[in-house]
Amino acid sequence: MALIVHKYGGTSMGSTERIRNVAKRVAKWVRAGHQLVVVPSAMSGETNRLLGLAKELSPEVVTPSIQRELDAIAATGEQVSVGLLSIALQQEGMEAVSYSGWQVPIRTDKSYTKARIQSIDDARVRADLAAGRVVVITGFQGVDEDDNVTTLGRGGSDTSAVAVAAAMKADECLIYTDVDGVYTTDPRIVPEARRLHTISFEEMLEMASLGSKVLQIRSVEFAGKYRVPLRVLSSFTPWDIDIVEEAKSGTLITFEEDEKMEQAVVSGIAFNRDEAKVTLLGVPDKPGIAFQILGPVADANIDIDVIIQNVSQDGKTDFSFTVHRNDYARCLDLLKNTVGPAVQATQVLGDPKICKVSIVGIGMKSHVGVAAKMFRCLSEEAINIQMISTSEIKTSVVIDEKYMELAVRALHKAFDLDQEAA
Amino acid sequence: MALIVHKYGGTSMGSTERIRNVAKRVAKWVRAGHQLVVVPSAMSGETNRLLGLAKELSPEVVTPSIQRELDAIAATGEQVSVGLLSIALQQEGMEAVSYSGWQVPIRTDKSYTKARIQSIDDARVRADLAAGRVVVITGFQGVDEDDNVTTLGRGGSDTSAVAVAAAMKADECLIYTDVDGVYTTDPRIVPEARRLHTISFEEMLEMASLGSKVLQIRSVEFAGKYRVPLRVLSSFTPWDIDIVEEAKSGTLITFEEDEKMEQAVVSGIAFNRDEAKVTLLGVPDKPGIAFQILGPVADANIDIDVIIQNVSQDGKTDFSFTVHRNDYARCLDLLKNTVGPAVQATQVLGDPKICKVSIVGIGMKSHVGVAAKMFRCLSEEAINIQMISTSEIKTSVVIDEKYMELAVRALHKAFDLDQEAA
Repeated sequence: MALIVHKYGGTSMGSTERIRNVAKRVAKWVRAGHQLVVVPSAMSGETNRLLGLAKELSPEVVTPSIQRELDAIAATGEQVSVGLLSIALQQEGMEAVSYSGWQVPIRTDKSYTKARIQSIDDARVRADLAAGRVVVITGFQGVDEDDNVTTLGRGGSDTSAVAVAAAMKADECLIYTDVDGVYTTDPRIVPEARRLHTISFEEMLEMASLGSKVLQIRSVEFAGKYRVPLRVLSSFTPWDIDIVEEAKSGTLITFEEDEKMEQAVVSGIAFNRDEAKVTLLGVPDKPGIAFQILGPVADANIDIDVIIQNVSQDGKTDFSFTVHRNDYARCLDLLKNTVGPAVQATQVLGDPKICKVSIVGIGMKSHVGVAAKMFRCLSEEAINIQMISTSEIKTSVVIDEKYMELAVRALHKAFDLDQEAA
Repeated sequence: MALIVHKYGGTSMGSTERIRNVAKRVAKWVRAGHQLVVVPSAMSGETNRLLGLAKELSPEVVTPSIQRELDAIAATGEQVSVGLLSIALQQEGMEAVSYSGWQVPIRTDKSYTKARIQSIDDARVRADLAAGRVVVITGFQGVDEDDNVTTLGRGGSDTSAVAVAAAMKADECLIYTDVDGVYTTDPRIVPEARRLHTISFEEMLEMASLGSKVLQIRSVEFAGKYRVPLRVLSSFTPWDIDIVEEAKSGTLITFEEDEKMEQAVVSGIAFNRDEAKVTLLGVPDKPGIAFQILGPVADANIDIDVIIQNVSQDGKTDFSFTVHRNDYARCLDLLKNTVGPAVQATQVLGDPKICKVSIVGIGMKSHVGVAAKMFRCLSEEAINIQMISTSEIKTSVVIDEKYMELAVRALHKAFDLDQEAA
């Protein structure tokens, strides 16, 4: 008997018919002798509908006290889901009980709309499991120390599921989703992309942060922190698929670096078009200049990703960095009107038409020349590299947006990702 | 400065445009110097939509554990409402905060789908009011001692509003609804029906229990128990109607029996078609027979209203009572198959085509001949009276359903209810 956490996305919960299928799948796992905790998302479209109503009333102004209400409103989507799923489970002959985040409770900090889970009290859930019940817990939400409802941000149900699995010391957390696992890259761009049977936690973290949308990055961080065995698998298989087959489908995110992974130098290619580049030209090259530039940007709550400072010429340097495209206009404004003049930049430039392409692989730790191979491949395709950023297990380049597909396809082939690892 | 509770029904909350109007009305009261607590219902249609989803999954079986989920699901309707109204109030420049029942908390017993409020902790709400905030609290719901969400049953938001007003010792509780007050009878049946400026609590209780749908009966009971001044008024007036005019509109439910009320012997005519009659013929007339019949009916959770036992003939008697039409088939079954044979009834009869018509008036306490006048009036219309039931301030008759409108119109005229009281 194992303790298993299942997480189902909004598509799986999209209608009562689909909810019934989720219940049948969960019941199959219970009948196979497991204890089940299920974390479903809101029915697809529901969160948008609810926030749309709020937006009709408050199109622009978003103060903390309005964010508090947005969270309370959005959280009801999952509260309906868990109730419906619990009913469906009971109709399947299971004993089941649903809880909202505040009932568990799942405690978070007070950051409305992007709260972080601080603790989960497992006593009530554990008592239910011991009594033979399936426990259905709302994803996406928690409650702060003053009993205000908070939400974890988009995709937060993944994080909820992993956090619950961590708190319960579950044997495995299964994330049912509309893709059947983690791929070497997006199959819509590279038809030869292969599903990975396993991926290391660190690689998954890079893939998630670099734009692979399979899992919310914070759920991967959580899984890593608490070493929760995490599996991403398809919610589109028939509910009555053989449980042994189902249990080994999808992609398992692992913590052991086994031999096979050592052999695959690069596990996947990630990419995103969500960033924009800004550059300050002719900045005096003196100590503290980076802080003088980036301090005000951080104060404006703008996240910075890749940063490049060129070598100095005549005591002057060029300073570039990337920000999320949503922050691009605001950031450029800030640089042109405030930061640029303050640091005596000769010019402020911006370019939103960039993309970031990354190779990710835990094998890069022990292999030299991987980055060089990447640059050669791009050079052979005549793609100019604008910025480079590296970590132990990934190398990212910023290039012109229009070369993105070409770069991803070329790299996928260059690193033999279309071939099953030996 | 007064502390005022406003309650708005689902129609008033039916769209973001209407919610904005509610916010403007509330803001007007705040700007006039009052402290406001607002209890809104779910957006119209929302509770039915939510329960409809649940019903798709569980068409028949309703166990306590499924009822628990129904309550958690249905309660989200009001949770969305309060969030939206709080946002709308903030857009009007008010400080506002919303709470679900569990956050106040509003404690109830554990009777899912028809819970009763046991206590309300006013500390959090009072602190907000003191800080200048409008407090928006979900109607219809509370939380039991084990933090399970409960609902109060249909129309429960009226009760919530009155209970909050009682706990806060509010100066007045204003129930905004889609009628502009309490009428002498239903204007759809008697066009001459008049709006009452005031009605006594006891009369209102009878009117509510006898089928007048203006207020949920438990809200009236609550108002009576805690002497909450309660006003029913129209939500269809423009939000910017003069506040002095608004404050005296509708119908005030009072606790003082003033002279005017003493003069009006009958204040209103109530009626309903929700009941059905069952009769056991030829039952032995011996001590304990009523209990032998009604005990099993009560055990089957069937509410009984009017009861008649005819005079005995040859040691046998006929025993009739009315039940809600929803329970009619089940009750008739029980009598035919179990109770009837057990008490040796010669026959079991049933008639769902009945109605109950009642005259209500606190003046009946001190006036004789009121019931006789009622019976004479019906007799003049050749309407046969099947059952009679009386209390200090009302007389009810059960008659053939097809005479209902005729009886109501004739009684309305006979008691001069179309004339303003002198």
